[in-house]
Amino acid sequence: MQVYEAPLRDMRFVIHELFGDDGFGNLPPHEEFTPDLIDAVIEEAAKLAQDVLLPINASGDLEGCVWENGVVRTPAGFKEAYAQFRDGGWCALASDPKWGGQGLPETVNKLVEEMISSANLSFGLYPGLTHGGTTALKAHASADLQERFLPKMVAGTWSGTMCLTEPHCGTDLGMLRTKAVPQPDGSYRITGNKIFISAGDHDLTENIIHLVLARLPDAPPGVRGISLFVVPKYLPKEDGSVGPSNGVSCTGIEHKMGLKASATCQMSFDDSTGWLVGEPNSGLAAMFTMMNTERVSVGVQGLGVATAAYQSAVAYAKDRIQGRALSGPKRPDLAADPIIVHPDVRRMLMTMRAYTEGCRMLSIWVARALDAERHSPDPEVRQRAEDMTALMTPVVKALLTDLGHETAQIGVQVYGGHGYIREHGMEQYARDARITMIYEGTNGVQALDLVGRKMPAHGGRYLRSFFHPVAAFIEQHKAVPGMEKMIEALEKAFGALQLSTATIAQKGLADPEEAGAASSDYLRLLGLVAMAYLFAKAAKVAGMKKMMGQDPDGFYAAKLVTVRFFYERILPQVAGLFQAIKAGKRSMMDLPEEAF
Amino acid sequence: MQVYEAPLRDMRFVIHELFGDDGFGNLPPHEEFTPDLIDAVIEEAAKLAQDVLLPINASGDLEGCVWENGVVRTPAGFKEAYAQFRDGGWCALASDPKWGGQGLPETVNKLVEEMISSANLSFGLYPGLTHGGTTALKAHASADLQERFLPKMVAGTWSGTMCLTEPHCGTDLGMLRTKAVPQPDGSYRITGNKIFISAGDHDLTENIIHLVLARLPDAPPGVRGISLFVVPKYLPKEDGSVGPSNGVSCTGIEHKMGLKASATCQMSFDDSTGWLVGEPNSGLAAMFTMMNTERVSVGVQGLGVATAAYQSAVAYAKDRIQGRALSGPKRPDLAADPIIVHPDVRRMLMTMRAYTEGCRMLSIWVARALDAERHSPDPEVRQRAEDMTALMTPVVKALLTDLGHETAQIGVQVYGGHGYIREHGMEQYARDARITMIYEGTNGVQALDLVGRKMPAHGGRYLRSFFHPVAAFIEQHKAVPGMEKMIEALEKAFGALQLSTATIAQKGLADPEEAGAASSDYLRLLGLVAMAYLFAKAAKVAGMKKMMGQDPDGFYAAKLVTVRFFYERILPQVAGLFQAIKAGKRSMMDLPEEAF
Repeated sequence: MQVYEAPLRDMRFVIHELFGDDGFGNLPPHEEFTPDLIDAVIEEAAKLAQDVLLPINASGDLEGCVWENGVVRTPAGFKEAYAQFRDGGWCALASDPKWGGQGLPETVNKLVEEMISSANLSFGLYPGLTHGGTTALKAHASADLQERFLPKMVAGTWSGTMCLTEPHCGTDLGMLRTKAVPQPDGSYRITGNKIFISAGDHDLTENIIHLVLARLPDAPPGVRGISLFVVPKYLPKEDGSVGPSNGVSCTGIEHKMGLKASATCQMSFDDSTGWLVGEPNSGLAAMFTMMNTERVSVGVQGLGVATAAYQSAVAYAKDRIQGRALSGPKRPDLAADPIIVHPDVRRMLMTMRAYTEGCRMLSIWVARALDAERHSPDPEVRQRAEDMTALMTPVVKALLTDLGHETAQIGVQVYGGHGYIREHGMEQYARDARITMIYEGTNGVQALDLVGRKMPAHGGRYLRSFFHPVAAFIEQHKAVPGMEKMIEALEKAFGALQLSTATIAQKGLADPEEAGAASSDYLRLLGLVAMAYLFAKAAKVAGMKKMMGQDPDGFYAAKLVTVRFFYERILPQVAGLFQAIKAGKRSMMDLPEEAF
Repeated sequence: MQVYEAPLRDMRFVIHELFGDDGFGNLPPHEEFTPDLIDAVIEEAAKLAQDVLLPINASGDLEGCVWENGVVRTPAGFKEAYAQFRDGGWCALASDPKWGGQGLPETVNKLVEEMISSANLSFGLYPGLTHGGTTALKAHASADLQERFLPKMVAGTWSGTMCLTEPHCGTDLGMLRTKAVPQPDGSYRITGNKIFISAGDHDLTENIIHLVLARLPDAPPGVRGISLFVVPKYLPKEDGSVGPSNGVSCTGIEHKMGLKASATCQMSFDDSTGWLVGEPNSGLAAMFTMMNTERVSVGVQGLGVATAAYQSAVAYAKDRIQGRALSGPKRPDLAADPIIVHPDVRRMLMTMRAYTEGCRMLSIWVARALDAERHSPDPEVRQRAEDMTALMTPVVKALLTDLGHETAQIGVQVYGGHGYIREHGMEQYARDARITMIYEGTNGVQALDLVGRKMPAHGGRYLRSFFHPVAAFIEQHKAVPGMEKMIEALEKAFGALQLSTATIAQKGLADPEEAGAASSDYLRLLGLVAMAYLFAKAAKVAGMKKMMGQDPDGFYAAKLVTVRFFYERILPQVAGLFQAIKAGKRSMMDLPEEAF
């Protein structure tokens, strides 16, 4: 059975205890968000996730969205849940107070996103896309457009989408064909077909505001000729109410592996009225403003599903009795021991646990940098935060979704045959999590972004925003009693990362294919080192608390076991990744195309 | 789109060229099966797979099995395909000629099973389970029962099942409750409920013969009190025709993640007449006769799905255009280059390729041992073959299904968003392959079998059947010009395996949980070394052919690239596995149950 209780204790550990020393500070305008207030917000979010969203997760998967007569109907309960979500102010959580938002820090918002994703990934996409849309409008749209769309979108009365992909182009947006023809009144007529549009149509809001990439008649070819438009489903009237249809129609929805309660729409724009957002021909850059935040959010989605899978697997492993412990019966009162006694079952559970706790720390570290980047009064801090988020965005997106999916699959394995059937809901987690490795840029594209753009940028400055704190931490802690062995392992892994970086930088300069060939292994290596660094920080905090006798509920003792598991059982993967990176491109480029 | 062309060239390489020197010989009674005859058989099997089974794979997944009024209906086309399959003699392929079989070697049978699994995994389960049933009856049933059931089952007129699992027991069969009450006429009345029964009911054959584990009234508790019974759906009349119903009913089918065209049934036996197979209370041993062969077959299922996923991903990667090669446009005539030019896409394809080719070699090596074990005139060869299959059965089952599923998931990733939707059929491969890691004993159970039973058996004799040929091969080839580097890597990996073995043997003796904690990593390590050994053998053959100018179609050149990829990009995982194994059990056993 799908069970989920928001991991508030671990979340509080990460936001309140782990990052005192990362230099990102306690940020304005967030000083008003005291620890108590933050705790109150995440406690409320936990209730919402557990009581409102979780109960319609499995049923939403089973029923799916239905497309009939050109409109999409969401599964039973989604409308009511969305109304409750909207009325509770959750749509506005992280939005600018200027437009009615609550202006919560990303650090808190990411925790809320994690909870929503744990409870109901499909549901989360509807408000999630809207939030992405408001981010783009806020950054690039004219004051007039902002006035027209932002208040309703922030309130959640209207929702948003991102219309990028067309049947022949997903990653390579340079090939897109949707057209925008200027009109005398300053608006544009948009015509074209888009696919894979999440929340493209549904019955949750009174209007849907599409952000559409299209080409102007005189646009240069390729990515330099793409502009961004805002195209509402219904044209808003002057008074803000919903007016006539705008030639936007949903021509079908995809039948997908999972995420079935989220409508993935084929959209047709037929002379639809739209307005330019930002400058002509710079639509891709505007869209990427939104994409980058979205990518961190997608990473958090992977983490969210993983957490739910972990908790459900633990519940089953404690309940399901099968066989006896290798060290002798643990529950002689029962016909067999619960399977959690078996080392290999614990290997699976501990892997899931280490992945989720590690991913949570990484996501919140990056979220803190996102907050600092936007709000720190210190330009140096802002710069360092910007460098760090630029570097880590592809890592968070790819690593957290890879590990999120892996965690969900391990969850299925813990359940055995019962994991493969619909009844317990475990296979839904695996199917739902799978998309996160693909959308908002496949994980291969993230890896290319990391080695091709982020690594060489500004002579390696982005990398330094990560390497420096790690190096400093190692230096400061290598002689701390009890931490020597862990720091030694961290130093070794960090050394492999530095050497890999040098190898790729050197080879890649002469031959970009060498960088491409190393990219995915390098992203994983960097991600593991980042998690190792964060686990070491966690061990320091936990070890101190435990030593001081401040561990009444055993939280810190448990944290130390998880850290040990990560260091002993997961971090060793670094050795293989390092060897693979050093091997270079030949074995993957030598085979002639026709020989495949 | 799902595409599949049986990899006959690679199959011929493996059966005719690779294993001349493995000591298992060209075996009676199989001397009549000349290479030409074998090639003719696999070519016919290829046609069957491609032309009859593949076309109903995606449609079978979409439609699924339907349970109505207590009976199961297979998807459209399955009845006709099964009739063609049966009439073509494919059910009888590997069965004893005494019962109407064709007595083909397992070596050939496994290739045919691979093709069937590639084309239509769900379909393959129906004849596959029957074959398992005939194996058990042939080994353990009385002559009378054999006469009554085997001819019809070998012919495929009747089908078979294995009824083990009950709702409260899967792995731990000691807890099963189904009862068998002896009758004056020597038969038994069987009563109980079974779940997860593949092919438990369907509309493909006129009768279904269930092999059921149950308890006699005076049976001792646990696994020592389980007996095996044959229980037909309809009682056969004296003349061999189908008689009255036998109280066997299908009370429902599971809604599963995949494998939807294979009926997974809940079965109820209500005072059903059955006959004892083998001795009372030794049913589990009898069932394991069948399970062991089945486990190798399940490994081959994983390989089969992986091969289909690989081919489909290659087809898409050659067809889908997106972006330009990092080394400059490769197809300036098109709007973009096919994605197969991108190093990271090639990394995915080469991984899939290396996994499938490596798994194929391993499955056929074990199949040759299965043949030698049964038919070699030399008792020493038989013993060595038996040792080797005992050792390798859990490895083939777990490794090939883990890698099979991983390959299918990589296939989804190559397709990007198009892999996540139903249309192209890629997500079906991932869903279908997933069950192979679970059924016939979860992969964790396989790993425990390896370290707990197979490793210590007869003072390590099983292990020596694998270690000796690898050690000899290394010794013989370490100075062969051009092979030095590869043999060095093999030797290093083999060294890690030997040390891991010693560590586990030593620690596990004092504390079985230590062996359990290492089991899954050890199985993977052993499997990678086995694949490395086989790839080295393949490189030797391919290198020789290429050197002698006997490579008109580039097959051997391509093989050498795959070998290189495996050694450079996959084998390095050994380093991390070795470290993890050495770390021991503490990090997974230390967390108190309540802290999870």
